[in-house]
Amino acid sequence: MLTLASDFGSPYPAAMKGVLRSRGVADLVDVAHDLPQGDPRAAAFWLRFVLPEFPPGVHLVVVDPGVGTDRAAVCVRAGEHALVGPDNGCLLPPARALAAEAVGPDADPAEAIEVFAVEDADPRSSTFHGRDVFAPAAAEVHEAGVASMGDLPALSRGFEPVDLAIPDPDVSGDGASGEVLVVDGFGNAITNVPGEVLDGRYGRTVEVNGDRVPVEPTYAAVDPGERLVTVGSHEYVELAVNRGRGADAFGVGIGDAVRIDW
Amino acid sequence: MLTLASDFGSPYPAAMKGVLRSRGVADLVDVAHDLPQGDPRAAAFWLRFVLPEFPPGVHLVVVDPGVGTDRAAVCVRAGEHALVGPDNGCLLPPARALAAEAVGPDADPAEAIEVFAVEDADPRSSTFHGRDVFAPAAAEVHEAGVASMGDLPALSRGFEPVDLAIPDPDVSGDGASGEVLVVDGFGNAITNVPGEVLDGRYGRTVEVNGDRVPVEPTYAAVDPGERLVTVGSHEYVELAVNRGRGADAFGVGIGDAVRIDW
Amino acid sequence: MLTLASDFGSPYPAAMKGVLRSRGVADLVDVAHDLPQGDPRAAAFWLRFVLPEFPPGVHLVVVDPGVGTDRAAVCVRAGEHALVGPDNGCLLPPARALAAEAVGPDADPAEAIEVFAVEDADPRSSTFHGRDVFAPAAAEVHEAGVASMGDLPALSRGFEPVDLAIPDPDVSGDGASGEVLVVDGFGNAITNVPGEVLDGRYGRTVEVNGDRVPVEPTYAAVDPGERLVTVGSHEYVELAVNRGRGADAFGVGIGDAVRIDW
Repeated sequence: MLTLASDFGSPYPAAMKGVLRSRGVADLVDVAHDLPQGDPRAAAFWLRFVLPEFPPGVHLVVVDPGVGTDRAAVCVRAGEHALVGPDNGCLLPPARALAAEAVGPDADPAEAIEVFAVEDADPRSSTFHGRDVFAPAAAEVHEAGVASMGDLPALSRGFEPVDLAIPDPDVSGDGASGEVLVVDGFGNAITNVPGEVLDGRYGRTVEVNGDRVPVEPTYAAVDPGERLVTVGSHEYVELAVNRGRGADAFGVGIGDAVRIDW
Repeated sequence: MLTLASDFGSPYPAAMKGVLRSRGVADLVDVAHDLPQGDPRAAAFWLRFVLPEFPPGVHLVVVDPGVGTDRAAVCVRAGEHALVGPDNGCLLPPARALAAEAVGPDADPAEAIEVFAVEDADPRSSTFHGRDVFAPAAAEVHEAGVASMGDLPALSRGFEPVDLAIPDPDVSGDGASGEVLVVDGFGNAITNVPGEVLDGRYGRTVEVNGDRVPVEPTYAAVDPGERLVTVGSHEYVELAVNRGRGADAFGVGIGDAVRIDW
Repeated sequence: MLTLASDFGSPYPAAMKGVLRSRGVADLVDVAHDLPQGDPRAAAFWLRFVLPEFPPGVHLVVVDPGVGTDRAAVCVRAGEHALVGPDNGCLLPPARALAAEAVGPDADPAEAIEVFAVEDADPRSSTFHGRDVFAPAAAEVHEAGVASMGDLPALSRGFEPVDLAIPDPDVSGDGASGEVLVVDGFGNAITNVPGEVLDGRYGRTVEVNGDRVPVEPTYAAVDPGERLVTVGSHEYVELAVNRGRGADAFGVGIGDAVRIDW
């Protein structure tokens, strides 16, 4: 199985699918092609959330604002999974989540992670490495199998990749200061504040950027159109509106500061 | 085959695909993930239109404004098909369409329909039952086979589901009063008025919310940019514009009243 | 393998997938369903770009502003590929690209192209030939195999199709006059001016509709938010902004004139 994720919109992903099919990869699964454009951190967030649901496979990830520059192409082994994409950090957070599943709670995920540089192919164009560099590399890894990827001539060991972490919020006794990481399709503004800060606060209120808002376990706990703070399935605090768009109602977008006072 | 439909946008559907793949369901078909958000009736309309084209399979449907409340999870057998989703009524209209195909024109579709409650799993989160409740249940039904789903311990017979019908319009000798059910991707405003009311009126005009508009069998029968009334492939009256957006030109959206006078 | 492309948005493509699955075509690949609506030329541009990446297969293409009129349905053999869709010209440019690959650089692509009319089925509706005419025809061709499609009773030889070419720009010693063909998901405005006109001009500037803009091989060669002229992976000149939307910054959309002075 090979999954595809990108910020390409349409129809560029189809060119990658064509390349993969031409190289014999038949089992393709679209993850998303409308990841926030040019935002490796948002890609990292979503892929860390989604990819651990999948069985072992190869994951082609192309969110690549530096296409055509000298940023490297990388392939990351994470347990029985492999991720292929640009070296801008978007692969590491999902790789750590996949590796954590592989090694279990008592070991260091880093043990199950190995990063390879993808040797420069001779790309047909300088603007579409998804088609010309990453899809061919992913097809090679898929054919060789993740366990044997280290033997591929196109991959070289010992590469030090760009890393990228979900930024830590500032949590103290009286509240948390964080920021909006992504806005989902329902308009929920998902922050970098871990959901556990709301333990024991359900049914009460907190102040969000100065406004009192109820903390509830489900959207439907407040009336349609009303704001709430909840913890989404990604386990982060999100600013939401029951049957409405939280990002609009709270007036926030990606990167905006969120201050929560208990 | 297992089809997926939701109002999730992206990338949440990929989490459901991952769960299904991890449970061995390889043959996934996306129906749509941009169904009108939180609108079970619109979902019912579209799925009644689309699902009867498919061969027997399991259909995972998640339009779930009540996620996290005590609304039940249901699984509906309809002939050789099964539908899995929240108990808000969105499964019944497509189930009746699938059952009608199974029993033929002389029998009652209800004979081919059976509704099961899905026993409460222990969901990881209260906000993403598509991943945590419905996808696992759909995978179980897919593995057991629709004919054997009644033997699954997680399903219990005799559940009385929420029903939901496409509302009937008021049709009389001089016209019809209905409403807009959905707006499609072309901007056509699709009403609940059955297309047969236009029989014998093609090539003539009717009054729609007070304006005279031609009744035509095809969009291209009027000049580009001109309004028309026609019957779409769903067999309902729709308000359209040739190469334009009918909903905008007629000034209507989902739920708005439509009065047609012959 | 059968690929699907349309301007349908959602959920109409699912009805076509259902028809194809019901007729036994299991290996479906979505190319795009958000091609510019009612624009056969834009469809031709994108499919010429994307389809040559795929291995031999049947390609169902439905961008059909004339649905329900007497425009014919056609099936085009192009080497080992087949394209099925409305006779409005959108199939010929991709067919020529596929045929050129089949015959190699020294032969005429026309040798590998054959056009068939699809005999009128009895469509259930006059508004959804994608489901009622084209998908069934594509399923028949898929089952028969491209090599044997000439034997299908539903196809008749010797049809003269509507042709449609990407319009030629006017290129002279001091510049080029062309137009915007499509705008991609990143907002890049892709013109009909072939990329080779920029050979030797990288790192310099040109005037685009009166404004001086740098010519660069990659988006990231200019600062974020800055405009540039580059050659996309489709090998045409495009008007772009690094991490922004070129069409907006240059104030152009599909069909608008673009004058480039060196």
